[in-house]
Amino acid sequence: MRTPRREVLVDITSEVDAALAELDSSHSGMVHVFVPHTTAGVTINEGADPSVATDLIDILARLIPREGGYRHAEGNSDAHSKTSLVGTHLTVPVAKGSLKLGTWQSIYLAEFDGPRNRRVWVELG
Amino acid sequence: MRTPRREVLVDITSEVDAALAELDSSHSGMVHVFVPHTTAGVTINEGADPSVATDLIDILARLIPREGGYRHAEGNSDAHSKTSLVGTHLTVPVAKGSLKLGTWQSIYLAEFDGPRNRRVWVELG
Amino acid sequence: MRTPRREVLVDITSEVDAALAELDSSHSGMVHVFVPHTTAGVTINEGADPSVATDLIDILARLIPREGGYRHAEGNSDAHSKTSLVGTHLTVPVAKGSLKLGTWQSIYLAEFDGPRNRRVWVELG
Repeated sequence: MRTPRREVLVDITSEVDAALAELDSSHSGMVHVFVPHTTAGVTINEGADPSVATDLIDILARLIPREGGYRHAEGNSDAHSKTSLVGTHLTVPVAKGSLKLGTWQSIYLAEFDGPRNRRVWVELG
Repeated sequence: MRTPRREVLVDITSEVDAALAELDSSHSGMVHVFVPHTTAGVTINEGADPSVATDLIDILARLIPREGGYRHAEGNSDAHSKTSLVGTHLTVPVAKGSLKLGTWQSIYLAEFDGPRNRRVWVELG
Repeated sequence: MRTPRREVLVDITSEVDAALAELDSSHSGMVHVFVPHTTAGVTINEGADPSVATDLIDILARLIPREGGYRHAEGNSDAHSKTSLVGTHLTVPVAKGSLKLGTWQSIYLAEFDGPRNRRVWVELG
């Protein structure tokens, strides 16, 4: 997947659900979502109002500025740290091949150093 | 469960243990704890001294103020962001139907926009 | 394992891989990594350039100072809060007995109140 800009949350709930249905459309238990990157993570938050995602990006940018006298020479230490704070893996309940999320929950790829091509690994847990 | 105020950590270790015993009192492996909300999460921290939980709430409130010129109109962007930082799911080892936690560890529901009725889903992993 | 100083990320990828091979050298699925402490956690981040880990430690220290008028009398409230932010558990994909990580990913024990003896529990998920 291509992320559209440097810092953005991309709602991937339907992609995860589709991957899950392809793996086993009758699975009940858990699904594991893993992002194999170090400047992008995965998180669950509200999907109804997109301003929730924008506020989260803004709050993290205020807490961890892009320029901060960091040692890592690639200029993305902020992105690495944000990734460790939101995390790179989720385990989510599944019932009969479908994600069992709360009413307002969506799964977001959390991009902190895009735009880039990103992978998300979805496996039965 | 009804949380008592806007921002609070509620120790749910014994509730998770009881749910686990009811699911399978001889289970060994993992248990999965999932909070189906977007302004409350779940975290593990010290249970012996309640001031650890209070300090965590205060530290998060200082980092992410309630009022911050946010876009989301419901006035709880701080709560959404804190939830993504602590997370909404845990996987915890289980031995013979009981949680296998470290000596000082307790499981906390992390409420950031209460008081509210909250649910916690406990499933064998 | 003995951590070398108060705040440090220790790369434990090879130790987790060795523990995994000992548990089941042909396992495919998930491995669960759990830190049974409340002032140390576990996180995934870049392993190639050690300055990424140093920057993460520095960024967290700036966000959550060691002295902050905290209630908890042991003087390590900063460490407890950082632990809840990075988390104490990981679930990582495994193929044929080996960790399936992204190219740049390493698993780090995140020490926030060392030097101490720390344990990491590795179990098949």
